[in-house]
Amino acid sequence: MNYCSQCGATVVLRVPDGDNLPRFVCETCRTIHYQNPKVVAGCIPEWEDRILLCRRAVEPRYGLWTIPAGFMENGETAEQAAARETVEEAQAEVEVTSLYAVFSIPHISQVYMIFRGAMRTLDFRAGHESLEVRLVRLEAIPWEALAFPVIHETLTRYVQDVKNGTFPVHLGKVLPTRF
Amino acid sequence: MNYCSQCGATVVLRVPDGDNLPRFVCETCRTIHYQNPKVVAGCIPEWEDRILLCRRAVEPRYGLWTIPAGFMENGETAEQAAARETVEEAQAEVEVTSLYAVFSIPHISQVYMIFRGAMRTLDFRAGHESLEVRLVRLEAIPWEALAFPVIHETLTRYVQDVKNGTFPVHLGKVLPTRF
Repeated sequence: MNYCSQCGATVVLRVPDGDNLPRFVCETCRTIHYQNPKVVAGCIPEWEDRILLCRRAVEPRYGLWTIPAGFMENGETAEQAAARETVEEAQAEVEVTSLYAVFSIPHISQVYMIFRGAMRTLDFRAGHESLEVRLVRLEAIPWEALAFPVIHETLTRYVQDVKNGTFPVHLGKVLPTRF
Repeated sequence: MNYCSQCGATVVLRVPDGDNLPRFVCETCRTIHYQNPKVVAGCIPEWEDRILLCRRAVEPRYGLWTIPAGFMENGETAEQAAARETVEEAQAEVEVTSLYAVFSIPHISQVYMIFRGAMRTLDFRAGHESLEVRLVRLEAIPWEALAFPVIHETLTRYVQDVKNGTFPVHLGKVLPTRF
C-alpha cells in the first residue's frame, strides 16, 4: 500500500496511538488502513458415498484438484459463500448441512471455513474456473494432485471421519510446508 | 474508496472481466481492489461456573458489556486472536479449549468466531479498552446491558448449553434488529 484510498495522499507505516501494530496511516485525512485475514469458504459436496471435486482452470495450481472454495464476499454468510462457490465452480446446488472445519493459514492470512453440503441433484458441470468436475469415491481421491495443503488436510480428515461415522468440527492451522 | 492504494490514480467501480460483482478497479495500474468480510475472534473465558465479562471503554457501545473479542490480525490463527483479545481487554490468560460458535453478520460483513477459553489463573483486570472486568455467574449476566446482538445470541445459547451439559458448535447468522 502506497496511497490513501480515501484522499490519495501518500501513506506511512507506523503504530497509531493506542495501537500496538504498524498500520498504513494517512497523515492527511487521518484514515488508518487496517489489513485483516480473508475468509475462504468451501464445501464438500456429498452424494451417497461420493464427493464432488473440481480440477482448477485458473492459477495458482492450474490443473490440480480441489473442493469448491473461494473468498467470502461482503453481504453474505459463510454458508451462503460455500454454496455460491459450489454453483460457480461446479454448477451444482447443495444444501449446506454442517460446519466441517475451520483452518487458519497464518502465513497467508486466510481462514478456511469448510462445510458439508448435500447435493440436491446429480446435475453438475465445470464452471468457468474449472477444467472438469467429477463425483469421486473416497478411494479415488487424487492425493498427489490436490491443489493446496489445506485441501489435503481437509480430505484426509474427512476420509477418516467417514470411516469412523462421526463428524466433529475440526479446528486447526495449516503450515506452509505441509506436503 | 476513491483512489488506488497502489498507484494513487482514481478508481472506478465496475464489474471486472470474468467477474460478476462490481469492484473498485484501477484503470491505470490494473489493480482490482477486493473488499471482503472481516473475522472477529472472541472468547468466553471460563472459571468454574463463572465467565469473564468486560465493560467497554470504547465506542461503539461505550459502557456496555461484552466478551473479549476483536478483529483478527494478519499472521495469526483465529484461536490466537481470541486469546490475544482476552489479554488485551481483560488482562487474562486463557487456554482456548474449543470452537463455540461461528456467526455471520452479513449486513456489516463480519464473521464472529467465538471460542471457549479456560482461564489459567484468577488474575485479570481491565485492559485499556475496558472500564471494568468481572467474573460473573450465568444468573448475573447483564442481559439488558450487553453491547451487541451477537453477544446476546452467544450468551443465550451458552447458558442453555451449560444447562444441557453439551456444547455443539453453533452456526448461524445475526440480523440487524435482533434485540
